Amino acid sequence: MKEALPSTTGRSIFWHQVLQGPVAEAVFSGKHSEAESLLKTHLREANNGLDKVMSNGEVFLIGAGPGDPDLLTLRAFRLLQKADVVLYDALVSDGVMALVPESVERVYVGKRRANHSVPQTGINQLLVDYAKQGKRVARLKGGDPFIFGRGGEEIETLAEHGIPFQVVPGITAASGCASYAGIPLTHRDHAQSVRFITGHLRSGEIDLNWPELVQPNQTLVFYMGLSGMETICQQLKDNGLDAQTPTALIEKGTTDKQRGFIGDLDSLPGIVREAKAKAPTLIIVGHVVSLHDKLAWFNLKEET
Amino acid sequence: MKEALPSTTGRSIFWHQVLQGPVAEAVFSGKHSEAESLLKTHLREANNGLDKVMSNGEVFLIGAGPGDPDLLTLRAFRLLQKADVVLYDALVSDGVMALVPESVERVYVGKRRANHSVPQTGINQLLVDYAKQGKRVARLKGGDPFIFGRGGEEIETLAEHGIPFQVVPGITAASGCASYAGIPLTHRDHAQSVRFITGHLRSGEIDLNWPELVQPNQTLVFYMGLSGMETICQQLKDNGLDAQTPTALIEKGTTDKQRGFIGDLDSLPGIVREAKAKAPTLIIVGHVVSLHDKLAWFNLKEET
Repeated sequence: MKEALPSTTGRSIFWHQVLQGPVAEAVFSGKHSEAESLLKTHLREANNGLDKVMSNGEVFLIGAGPGDPDLLTLRAFRLLQKADVVLYDALVSDGVMALVPESVERVYVGKRRANHSVPQTGINQLLVDYAKQGKRVARLKGGDPFIFGRGGEEIETLAEHGIPFQVVPGITAASGCASYAGIPLTHRDHAQSVRFITGHLRSGEIDLNWPELVQPNQTLVFYMGLSGMETICQQLKDNGLDAQTPTALIEKGTTDKQRGFIGDLDSLPGIVREAKAKAPTLIIVGHVVSLHDKLAWFNLKEET
Repeated sequence: MKEALPSTTGRSIFWHQVLQGPVAEAVFSGKHSEAESLLKTHLREANNGLDKVMSNGEVFLIGAGPGDPDLLTLRAFRLLQKADVVLYDALVSDGVMALVPESVERVYVGKRRANHSVPQTGINQLLVDYAKQGKRVARLKGGDPFIFGRGGEEIETLAEHGIPFQVVPGITAASGCASYAGIPLTHRDHAQSVRFITGHLRSGEIDLNWPELVQPNQTLVFYMGLSGMETICQQLKDNGLDAQTPTALIEKGTTDKQRGFIGDLDSLPGIVREAKAKAPTLIIVGHVVSLHDKLAWFNLKEET
């Protein structure tokens, strides 16, 4: 060490960078041999000036969870503290953003009021650009990046450019809303499996294979289903699901604005329309919803 | 305050209990009016001696995540720090248990070597008993308590006894393993939905509706599927899924012992048998598995 970096300041900067940079992340990720070879490379390069060490950008693809900042993982929290820049979108709650240090640059890439948003390819490219500038980039996504988060597409671009990345799973909306609404997604007596489906409308229609969704003893969870709610309930009934199947819509789940609307396939669309529910929402269909009456514990004042 | 509790020590004990007990938890859970009424009750009771205040036990049903202690949520971590006793089972990793303070009583309720385990009704009753002793009980479960965790059954018993509880979702094994293996569970080009199924054998058989599991553009995730793996792959093929469908088994996902085995419905059972994989494991079936080649980032040294 003393040979490669004679000055105390040089060694101090070197260790600072190593302990916060890709070497440390490689160790935390269990990639010990990669960490060792990275460390040797850094030491060699440090000898040729510290610039090169600083050019090692990397990307943390982080699930921000469903809303409650208390549901961030320890790893997500730690990585946010050492990011240089954070790219986030509309589904990342204000509470989570409040945990990002003041010193970190914030770049909003979600939909704006006029419905203009940075297209996916633009976001992919932004991540590459920031990392190539040597920055530690935190890409924050609502929920879990690998469940309806398009996280795969973002790291595919990074992989193509040889940029180091890691993926930090987040509490997906289904887990968060179910826990905070007191609705187990699986249950010995009611559901032996659970399906996550996107209820997002494309040009007014939902492209789903409805007959095969209608199965006994399972829970269906629709993400982004608010605008398609009437279609979802109608199609499930038309394809043979009992109209009295318990159904819930959770609005702004896990936040202090959470509201839970409980009914069945027949009644819920009317209840939700009446209450003027707003996104983000999650729809849960299945007998497990009937447990809510007994198991609800969070934010009951707001319950409808 | 001074009227109700004239001594400084009395007031200090009172606030200490309020700020760590059900009142604080009610505030954190957004139940403000409940918090206020609890606070008033406590103050009234404190006047009659502090014993009553201390008898308010409660239960935190906490998801411990898939293994990496870094994937614990901030909320789970916070609640563990103030628990009096923690009940845990085999799926809670040593790393997570290391985050439980020394002073907290530990009660193991999982399977022991001789395969004896505390039956579910016994666990439900233990939670009630500890809470009735006025204890803050952390019930730690691997993954998410509401996804194949039988968490619903445990809090049903608590609800029947009027014991306060809250549910803290955890990173479910599917999220954790997918992220750490570089396998997105949904992807625009490959899968528009994902299903979580238990692959657990009951008297040598898996009771699943195989024909309806075989659908295009979806990802199947089998929990607890190691011993039933050959049956799972064979049944999926017999029911029409292409034998070359990419399939992965992740062993000890997210821990530094993670191993990922990649193949297809034909080849994977042999690969896994050869490698002598051990539980806990997770099986992922679908075209998204093919992205692993490009997106793997964690613990690559151990990769097979």
